[in-house]
Amino acid sequence: MITVNIIGSGNVATHLIANMLCENDIFIQKIYARRPYTLEGMIESSKITGRIEDLKPADITIISISDDYISEISSKIPFTNQLVVHTSGSSDISVIDSKNRQGVLYPLQTFSKTKKINFRNIPICIETAKISDLIILKKLAGILSNKVYMINSEQRRSMHVAAVFSSNFVNHMYHIANEICQEKNIPFEILMPLIQETSQKIKTLSPKDAQTGPAKRQDKKTILRHLESINDPIRKEIYTLLTNSIIKNNVSKL
Amino acid sequence: MITVNIIGSGNVATHLIANMLCENDIFIQKIYARRPYTLEGMIESSKITGRIEDLKPADITIISISDDYISEISSKIPFTNQLVVHTSGSSDISVIDSKNRQGVLYPLQTFSKTKKINFRNIPICIETAKISDLIILKKLAGILSNKVYMINSEQRRSMHVAAVFSSNFVNHMYHIANEICQEKNIPFEILMPLIQETSQKIKTLSPKDAQTGPAKRQDKKTILRHLESINDPIRKEIYTLLTNSIIKNNVSKL
Repeated sequence: MITVNIIGSGNVATHLIANMLCENDIFIQKIYARRPYTLEGMIESSKITGRIEDLKPADITIISISDDYISEISSKIPFTNQLVVHTSGSSDISVIDSKNRQGVLYPLQTFSKTKKINFRNIPICIETAKISDLIILKKLAGILSNKVYMINSEQRRSMHVAAVFSSNFVNHMYHIANEICQEKNIPFEILMPLIQETSQKIKTLSPKDAQTGPAKRQDKKTILRHLESINDPIRKEIYTLLTNSIIKNNVSKL
Repeated sequence: MITVNIIGSGNVATHLIANMLCENDIFIQKIYARRPYTLEGMIESSKITGRIEDLKPADITIISISDDYISEISSKIPFTNQLVVHTSGSSDISVIDSKNRQGVLYPLQTFSKTKKINFRNIPICIETAKISDLIILKKLAGILSNKVYMINSEQRRSMHVAAVFSSNFVNHMYHIANEICQEKNIPFEILMPLIQETSQKIKTLSPKDAQTGPAKRQDKKTILRHLESINDPIRKEIYTLLTNSIIKNNVSKL
């Protein structure tokens, strides 16, 4: 049985709590949240506190809040020399106040409050300042997920950038496509099989080999026709930049 | 039974032929291809010709070649007043020589030669210059796919741009993410659940509601940290442009 404290009640914290509540080998000792009402109904109210001073040492204390506040909150934790980890993809392990033993437990996934997420297939990246702390953090991660990776802070920083490209920016592409469809009364669902196939293809092909389209073919006539039909200046700029990047990438790798 | 001629042996043509061969209600009469050897082993060689003059009238003649040559090839077809359709997302119906009855049969999917595609769930967009031709083209499309849409040339042009954003550009984002991972010895597979979840999410949420990440949160510290860690100037430009686009989109819709 691993005992944990949770600090935070945002997207990641909420999903983490929901998944931990399903595991017999994890015991949530206390949750500190500035806005404790967001957790109402999820867990007995006696476990939730609005005062950080109420936290007692646990096997692992998990800070799952905005990156900007991790450092400050970690310095206010009312105990020392315990394992304290954050869940941030872009923060260094060292942002945690060194009065406790530092670690990271970063689930690499996109979390929306409204959509349930099962952690079983979510990669969890772990790191600890002290090697001896790896055992218990690995155990906790292994209870939640089948995919546990040891990733250091430098790798995690790059991985987070890669995640922004492959998820946040990808979703923004979907958004632009959706708006283009709406403007012409085309049902967005018409693009859904294409979108799903595009994400499936890279399971068996490298993204480089999976690339298709006018930029890949250097089909300048189509590219010009497309640019003519795009009125929004930012969309035009995005189309031009990404087209050039695909072309350059093709040429440089010949 | 619908009889068809096929002109072309590229990605789309090959997948179209493979799917038609599985349908009892479609009879492939002749295939004209400049490079007929690409079809070897797929269909009896007597049905393949390298001379366009060999084509005889069929219920539907399908031109599935590069956009730039549709017009020229259609003018060389050795018969008149038959239904001739192209499979291009970005070409107008009128590029087909008007000596025949014009139409479009556009399967909206990304085709790689090496990956088998079942047309059953692929949206097929159809258009005919003469309303009376819609019946047979709709029938052919309906044999191949459960999802047949009537889409005019103007809509198709925009849909094709939307497809470039939601597929070609998305795949390029995957490619950049893959390169970032390789540079830091991070297995690309670690991003796979995130990528799959991102494409699944928009089945139940609008892309706007599904947006997450530092740009959505206007988390300037993280954005700056990311930009510092990106060395490649084009990647930096893409990161900046897409981040600004997400921020602008959020602000303008508040």
